[in-house]
Amino acid sequence: MSNQKFNVAVVGATGAVGEQILKLLDQRDFPISSLKLLSSARSAGTTINFKGQDITVEEATPESFKGIDIALFSAGGDVSKELAPHAARHGAVCIDNTNAFRMDPHTPLVVPEVNPEQIDEHNGIIANPNCSTIQMVAALKPLQDAYGISRIIVSTYQAVSGAGSRAIDELHRQTKAVIEGQEVTPDILPVGSLPVKHQIAFNAIPQIDKFQENGYTLEEMKMVLETKKIMKDESISVTATCVRIPVVYGHSESVYVELKNDYDLDAVKKLLADSPGITLVDDPSSQAYPLATDCAGKPDVFVGRLRRDLGDNKGLNMWIVSDNLMKGAAWNAVQIAEIIVSKRNARA
Amino acid sequence: MSNQKFNVAVVGATGAVGEQILKLLDQRDFPISSLKLLSSARSAGTTINFKGQDITVEEATPESFKGIDIALFSAGGDVSKELAPHAARHGAVCIDNTNAFRMDPHTPLVVPEVNPEQIDEHNGIIANPNCSTIQMVAALKPLQDAYGISRIIVSTYQAVSGAGSRAIDELHRQTKAVIEGQEVTPDILPVGSLPVKHQIAFNAIPQIDKFQENGYTLEEMKMVLETKKIMKDESISVTATCVRIPVVYGHSESVYVELKNDYDLDAVKKLLADSPGITLVDDPSSQAYPLATDCAGKPDVFVGRLRRDLGDNKGLNMWIVSDNLMKGAAWNAVQIAEIIVSKRNARA
Repeated sequence: MSNQKFNVAVVGATGAVGEQILKLLDQRDFPISSLKLLSSARSAGTTINFKGQDITVEEATPESFKGIDIALFSAGGDVSKELAPHAARHGAVCIDNTNAFRMDPHTPLVVPEVNPEQIDEHNGIIANPNCSTIQMVAALKPLQDAYGISRIIVSTYQAVSGAGSRAIDELHRQTKAVIEGQEVTPDILPVGSLPVKHQIAFNAIPQIDKFQENGYTLEEMKMVLETKKIMKDESISVTATCVRIPVVYGHSESVYVELKNDYDLDAVKKLLADSPGITLVDDPSSQAYPLATDCAGKPDVFVGRLRRDLGDNKGLNMWIVSDNLMKGAAWNAVQIAEIIVSKRNARA
Repeated sequence: MSNQKFNVAVVGATGAVGEQILKLLDQRDFPISSLKLLSSARSAGTTINFKGQDITVEEATPESFKGIDIALFSAGGDVSKELAPHAARHGAVCIDNTNAFRMDPHTPLVVPEVNPEQIDEHNGIIANPNCSTIQMVAALKPLQDAYGISRIIVSTYQAVSGAGSRAIDELHRQTKAVIEGQEVTPDILPVGSLPVKHQIAFNAIPQIDKFQENGYTLEEMKMVLETKKIMKDESISVTATCVRIPVVYGHSESVYVELKNDYDLDAVKKLLADSPGITLVDDPSSQAYPLATDCAGKPDVFVGRLRRDLGDNKGLNMWIVSDNLMKGAAWNAVQIAEIIVSKRNARA
């Protein structure tokens, strides 16, 4: 087993997720031979320091990926759709954090705690699921294995950072305005590209991404469709309500799951506590449960408020919290990259 | 039919709900002969202006209720437990906004849109349900009548005003501290009388009221038990997850309801739009759905995001928003008082 180093490209290096990816590549001492930082023409030319070295961000083009081994994409779906095929053509493995290829039947959609074996099935592109999906399936996988899952009903409490840096700025700006008694003029949320804007400060907006024909938002349909694909079970019934709330980092989720077989609540707690990537925070007597503010910046998925449905003994309520920029985006992508590295090292 | 006037007492006149009750008695031109404002010893002595007249708040005692016709209680469960029976003994009808008598089998628990006929069954006390229950059952009643309801799974997004004026102050104080980069020291939430405090600014706290033996909070159990009592159907399976979020006024609820008979979505929309006390706000094409900031200060229950469960054609997702101090407390109580008045006038 050798310790190969890799030519890595980060596309969307100046964005909220790109920033976290670079931080993780640094912290994890990812085996980098060369690091190329790419962005849109608008952000090109800025300089980012990585391990003491200033790197100039370049405009991403089809030819940017010559010689690249691993390309991490988080610059929006359109950029991935255009450039990831070129990167793959040049021999790179693309780990794509956008919605561009997630439901493509030829692209594996991977959460390392759930379906790591599918990493090998890629044709140059591996899709990173949506943030709200990742944390839910990571917490549900041990239950699927032990009891089977027939139905999932989820309501989310999502942080503004999921809508990018400009949404974070907007929440701060609006909050300050409300506190100072100034007028609030919404500018970005709920969806930057749509005409109607709503106040997010001191509010709850039941719209994340665009509405689909069936009345669900795209975010809700991502949770429905991605969950079935990642858990490899089209028979699981999934319904979702996705809501933006005035939190900066960390998505919370109220998840109701109906298991196929009956369960013992203490056994479920032990199972989750022993599962990799999951931290159980569940002690009502000390008022301990996962909180977005506690989970921000941490890689794990936090689970608590576990309790049996009083009306149906196979129903289980859970409260699942994770940092949407970490496990929900950057950390899941870097985890996949690390698995690719360790497989190549094992082969070498 | 005469137009009788009534001796009215408001207990907890200086609190967040008491303030709304007085505002409504004024706006609605409630037929008041005399108005007595009562509170704890701590708040007694303050003066409140009602229709141009300064009224001094008196300490509530068992003898405060002599000659009172209608007493509106919102000074906490202990005060109601102690004083409402005395008020009833003096011949007053008590409309109690606390948890003291809600599950008492001899006390009707009333939402005028759902079970107004039970007002007549009182023995001196009529209980006003919990805020999060009221708005949900008001929106579900038309569905129960038309299709039958087998199951309810609800996740709430509750405003801090539900925890009183001090919690509103705490949210503002903490928010200001975070924005200014100061340290946050939680003081009230999630539960004033419990030792552990959590930050509410830019957070979501999955605890409202104390934990019960079964792992549910008291707020969650209120939604379970009160719903069955108000809807007069113990067979409805109800499970709830109650969450406090950084909103000042207006509870939002993600409600999944399973109907007994199949439904047509457009027929459900029409049914709700035509139901008294309910405003349908549901147009994805114009990004219209109920928002807490829009509902604050309004008496109605607002419903939107209606959509069929993709996995089960009898499942329906709803987004229900209402001002927790209005329909969730003061307005529901004043509505009950108005019904009592109109019945007495009809009888006279």
